[in-house]
Amino acid sequence: MAAERLRRIVLAARPQGLPRQEDFRLEEQSVPAVEDGGVLLRVRYLSLDPYMRGRMDDRKSYAPPVALGAVMPAESVAEVIDSRHPDYATGDLVVARTGWCSHAMLPGAGLRKLTRTSVPVSTALGVLGMPGFTAYAGMRVIGQPKAGETVVVAAATGPVGSLVGQLARAAGARAVGIAGGAEKCACALREFSFDAALDHRQPDLPQRLAAACPDGVDVYFENVGGAVWQAVLPLLNRFARVPVCGLIAQYNSIEPDTGRNSLAATMRAILTRGLTVRGFINYDFSEHYADFLREVGAGVAAGRIRYREDIVEGLERAPQAFIGMLTGRNFGKLLVRVTADA
Amino acid sequence: MAAERLRRIVLAARPQGLPRQEDFRLEEQSVPAVEDGGVLLRVRYLSLDPYMRGRMDDRKSYAPPVALGAVMPAESVAEVIDSRHPDYATGDLVVARTGWCSHAMLPGAGLRKLTRTSVPVSTALGVLGMPGFTAYAGMRVIGQPKAGETVVVAAATGPVGSLVGQLARAAGARAVGIAGGAEKCACALREFSFDAALDHRQPDLPQRLAAACPDGVDVYFENVGGAVWQAVLPLLNRFARVPVCGLIAQYNSIEPDTGRNSLAATMRAILTRGLTVRGFINYDFSEHYADFLREVGAGVAAGRIRYREDIVEGLERAPQAFIGMLTGRNFGKLLVRVTADA
Repeated sequence: MAAERLRRIVLAARPQGLPRQEDFRLEEQSVPAVEDGGVLLRVRYLSLDPYMRGRMDDRKSYAPPVALGAVMPAESVAEVIDSRHPDYATGDLVVARTGWCSHAMLPGAGLRKLTRTSVPVSTALGVLGMPGFTAYAGMRVIGQPKAGETVVVAAATGPVGSLVGQLARAAGARAVGIAGGAEKCACALREFSFDAALDHRQPDLPQRLAAACPDGVDVYFENVGGAVWQAVLPLLNRFARVPVCGLIAQYNSIEPDTGRNSLAATMRAILTRGLTVRGFINYDFSEHYADFLREVGAGVAAGRIRYREDIVEGLERAPQAFIGMLTGRNFGKLLVRVTADA
Repeated sequence: MAAERLRRIVLAARPQGLPRQEDFRLEEQSVPAVEDGGVLLRVRYLSLDPYMRGRMDDRKSYAPPVALGAVMPAESVAEVIDSRHPDYATGDLVVARTGWCSHAMLPGAGLRKLTRTSVPVSTALGVLGMPGFTAYAGMRVIGQPKAGETVVVAAATGPVGSLVGQLARAAGARAVGIAGGAEKCACALREFSFDAALDHRQPDLPQRLAAACPDGVDVYFENVGGAVWQAVLPLLNRFARVPVCGLIAQYNSIEPDTGRNSLAATMRAILTRGLTVRGFINYDFSEHYADFLREVGAGVAAGRIRYREDIVEGLERAPQAFIGMLTGRNFGKLLVRVTADA
């Protein structure tokens, strides 16, 4: 272990709009010794997720902002390489909040041990991790799709959207996905069984969405905001439900939009159509986590539930991959392989 | 009865912005004969409510627009003066959807008979009618105030707001009311037991509201929209609930607001604070109607629940009274006395 160095990526500057490579800095230090009650981890896969963009801004949110010079936050699948905690032994695999690091020394409490199954460990960060649970909990608690209803979701090949579509179909609902580009739309139809898939980069999204939803929209799973919300709003049926788990389209906006104030139209729709618009963070619904792991875990193991991963090699590529994700350049759950599987 | 004539007020023109007297027309005709299965009604009190403004516009809402030349819709307390329905006899008092009329011939089915109690019959249009049930159902199903929480409502001396405040207090919550003018604010404190009352016509509402809600806002009962929403939004606590039953501030707006687009800020707050924003019409929750009549009826009869009425004399004054209500000129539940009590 003498040759191993801890590499980590810290926030170097607060981005204005879309982050740039210079907003991040790669640092190196020695690997720390494990403290009593702790475990020393070597990261295998790092999860890159849109919520991290919000943490880079110095404003109030559900979590405090990342301090300048502090390591970027992330969940990882990591291997225990040294342990002074009775529940963990060298060689165990865990899900941990390591941040964008090659190694981390963390208290043993709060880790989640992965049992070896037929499913790749990387899924613990995607379809069987936070994004998958976001889709599951948002649909179960807020969306509540019924047979014959229509469910719309954007980022339809991403880890949240792809599971939302599959859960909609499993409930007997029509699933309409929105994605960026022909290749992602083809994947949404072929891999994730969406009934229709629309490319938001092509013109006339509102018209095409209306055509794809002849009976209106009963559940809109909001993870992007912006133009997609404007296209969906006129189609929402009476008593439609809108779980809001992300607004990636507006994360990088520096100035509020000017022009027509669409708040009045949104409030009017909420009132006159009895809409429920509800924001949530996956852990708000942790009482459903065990059900999620059992149900979706069984579906993934059996091949009934599909997922797609986009794996980037090397911690040093994390900033560029993250920036690309914010403009839709990833194709599936974005992961960074920090060290290869043993 | 030979001398009686049916007077009614019809929609003469679709208003642009705030309605004008010329948008309404008083018509007279003979009182119709009662048909088989029907009752002939003489209206005592007519209810004027903000939702009627929405019906005057030719656009999609939860109810179809009023046709040009058609009678303006309204609920009334009326006396049966002739009946060919077995459930109704001359002299019975009913709540009926008569419209803005002195008389109406309606099918007996769908009327609600009023039993004679100690409570004035006019309350069947206010605290014990649609507005009261709107407050009750919105608080029970969506708002769900808990002891120690803070509830904010505007139009605090109106029939919805005044009951929202009293229900909040009954639940052990702090009730903060917003109203137009010093007299209404004094009434909110004195009559309706609000913990604080703020005049929205004075400057710096956001600052004063923040000072009146030191622990933030857990329930905002939305019945006005516009500037009050902007003042409340920064104060909403994590998991705050926003029942939306009206948006009177934007009913008369012709053009969408320009300038800063506050939709993005609203969606961001919904996401990061896990807000629930849910529109409703009172009859969406009709399963709670019997509980409402029993609980609030007992409170009103015992004097525990207070209410305030603003009664205008004469059907011909309904248009002016309605226009005044849209600019906050009424003080309490607005009613038109069409014929005096027997």
